[in-house]
Amino acid sequence: MNNVNIKRLAAELNLSISTVSRALQNSSEIGEKTKVRVRALAKKLNYQPNHYAAGLRKKQSHTIAVVVPEVADNFFSLVIDGIDQVAQTKGYQVLIFLTRDDYAKEVNFIRHLQSGRVDGVLISVSSESRDNNHLHELNQKNIPVVFFDRVFEDIPTAKITTDDYKASYKATKQLISKGCKKIACLAIPENLLISRKRVQGYMDALEDSGLQIDLNLVVHCDNHDEENHKIIHNLIEKYRPDGIFSSVEKLALHTYQSCIDLKIDIPNELKIISFSSLKIAPLLQPPLSTITQPAFEMGKAAAEILFKALQEGKSDLTDDHIEMESEIVLRDSSI
Amino acid sequence: MNNVNIKRLAAELNLSISTVSRALQNSSEIGEKTKVRVRALAKKLNYQPNHYAAGLRKKQSHTIAVVVPEVADNFFSLVIDGIDQVAQTKGYQVLIFLTRDDYAKEVNFIRHLQSGRVDGVLISVSSESRDNNHLHELNQKNIPVVFFDRVFEDIPTAKITTDDYKASYKATKQLISKGCKKIACLAIPENLLISRKRVQGYMDALEDSGLQIDLNLVVHCDNHDEENHKIIHNLIEKYRPDGIFSSVEKLALHTYQSCIDLKIDIPNELKIISFSSLKIAPLLQPPLSTITQPAFEMGKAAAEILFKALQEGKSDLTDDHIEMESEIVLRDSSI
Repeated sequence: MNNVNIKRLAAELNLSISTVSRALQNSSEIGEKTKVRVRALAKKLNYQPNHYAAGLRKKQSHTIAVVVPEVADNFFSLVIDGIDQVAQTKGYQVLIFLTRDDYAKEVNFIRHLQSGRVDGVLISVSSESRDNNHLHELNQKNIPVVFFDRVFEDIPTAKITTDDYKASYKATKQLISKGCKKIACLAIPENLLISRKRVQGYMDALEDSGLQIDLNLVVHCDNHDEENHKIIHNLIEKYRPDGIFSSVEKLALHTYQSCIDLKIDIPNELKIISFSSLKIAPLLQPPLSTITQPAFEMGKAAAEILFKALQEGKSDLTDDHIEMESEIVLRDSSI
Repeated sequence: MNNVNIKRLAAELNLSISTVSRALQNSSEIGEKTKVRVRALAKKLNYQPNHYAAGLRKKQSHTIAVVVPEVADNFFSLVIDGIDQVAQTKGYQVLIFLTRDDYAKEVNFIRHLQSGRVDGVLISVSSESRDNNHLHELNQKNIPVVFFDRVFEDIPTAKITTDDYKASYKATKQLISKGCKKIACLAIPENLLISRKRVQGYMDALEDSGLQIDLNLVVHCDNHDEENHKIIHNLIEKYRPDGIFSSVEKLALHTYQSCIDLKIDIPNELKIISFSSLKIAPLLQPPLSTITQPAFEMGKAAAEILFKALQEGKSDLTDDHIEMESEIVLRDSSI
């Protein structure tokens, strides 16, 4: 056993534990002279970082970060509610950061977090995320990460998602059972796993029902409201689908607006069902049929996994994948 | 002129500037021995903190905090969008913190911020806020604060609000002009200035039109959804108002739900107008008349004032009060 820990380094150097810890992490907050002294002694005494020390350092922040694409979407605001509820019982602060589906923002922020200002991270990755080095780096800094909804499959940590494929399949089948023959799919960017799963569910439901897949009817939207509105308006105007499967809430709302503009009657001329956690879905004209993810429960589950890890001083979480079930709530928009 | 600055203290003590700075702020991250050494030298050389030094320290975080009661309300999510847009051009990170109208949470978080993890704070205070020492302390730590929407009047700093009294007066007059004689008011807690202003506008409009004020028709709601729903349901069931002036979005949506439950027709049996930034107000059944605050612009304006102060190294902001105009958008719910 090697008994050299940060505490001993700090005592020998007459520095605080946190200064030594930050010096070892090459923090920009520590002067070069101090870093050189700390590194020299660490090397001399063959210091090895350990989880317990990492735990000690982390006890100082009592803060976790929640990284989400947006909060205007009711799914994310409900997940945050769930996280918040658990964090409150643990005496933790929750900081929220919005990536706005901007990969560069996500990377910047995650790098920013590495300086130890949070003990753990709960993240739903941005649409444009391509490379996940920034998330690997968090792991290396002993900051545990839990993914929810939008995950990177190849990072071995805890992940909470819903049954995206199955729910999409069932929702599309529902539209088909009501007589729709020309169903469009409003998707989010393809580089997101949940996007691919939802589109796949839609396509398989069409195929299994003997309907042809028309790629003109599958549109990918991103984070630009105006652009999305145009895409959906054009889709409806040009191809006149009789059904729409929408993979996120905001695209369903653009559909409602476009139908008003184009004087298309929902559900008589076009039926729609959408992933959505919109509490006021029943108040819309007509009430919107939804695929409702258990957003609040997902937030709670994700937070509980994270806090368990923090309590145990673990930063490497087991590569567990929890899949929760969404509920399909049929209302007038798809009758 | 006294030429002793943090840099000189750091050089003489062979410590980093940031360690000296934190030691002087009595940060828990710095060991006692170091603090004693730093304080002793600071006293000996008669060190006086100055704004420039504060500026130096602050350059490290490049982060601002936005403190809001909630994000599920569209007003706050739009304000955050406005703040975010400005922050992005300045290369700053935006951290969001939700108080959920919980005074203790607000105080805890603000105290947490004092350790220098943010350069500035934009805040809409929690409903239950009573004493503002925690905000005064931020000022003392040279962290500038800008208020928006929900302000503390007696803290001398920049404040952005809207014309709450005038807009409420006009909206209530609108209901009266459509024949309403028994108008209820859905208010938020009285300890918020905007709440009192909105209720006053409602009351003055009634009085000026020769209508009697019935305090049974004025209800104060808080942050508990279920409780709010009950209050509104009972109000409508028991007193059968023919008009409702709602001072926040969520209370209008509870009214819609209650009217469905009670089989009351909007607008024929009850007309309603509400403060709201709900983009989908036109998609509701019936479309909701709104008092729409320039939420995005308020966020931008608040952020611009804060960044100007940060750029100039100022932490004491002028006690400027900017009042922006809300727009009344009439739709079918009040015809």
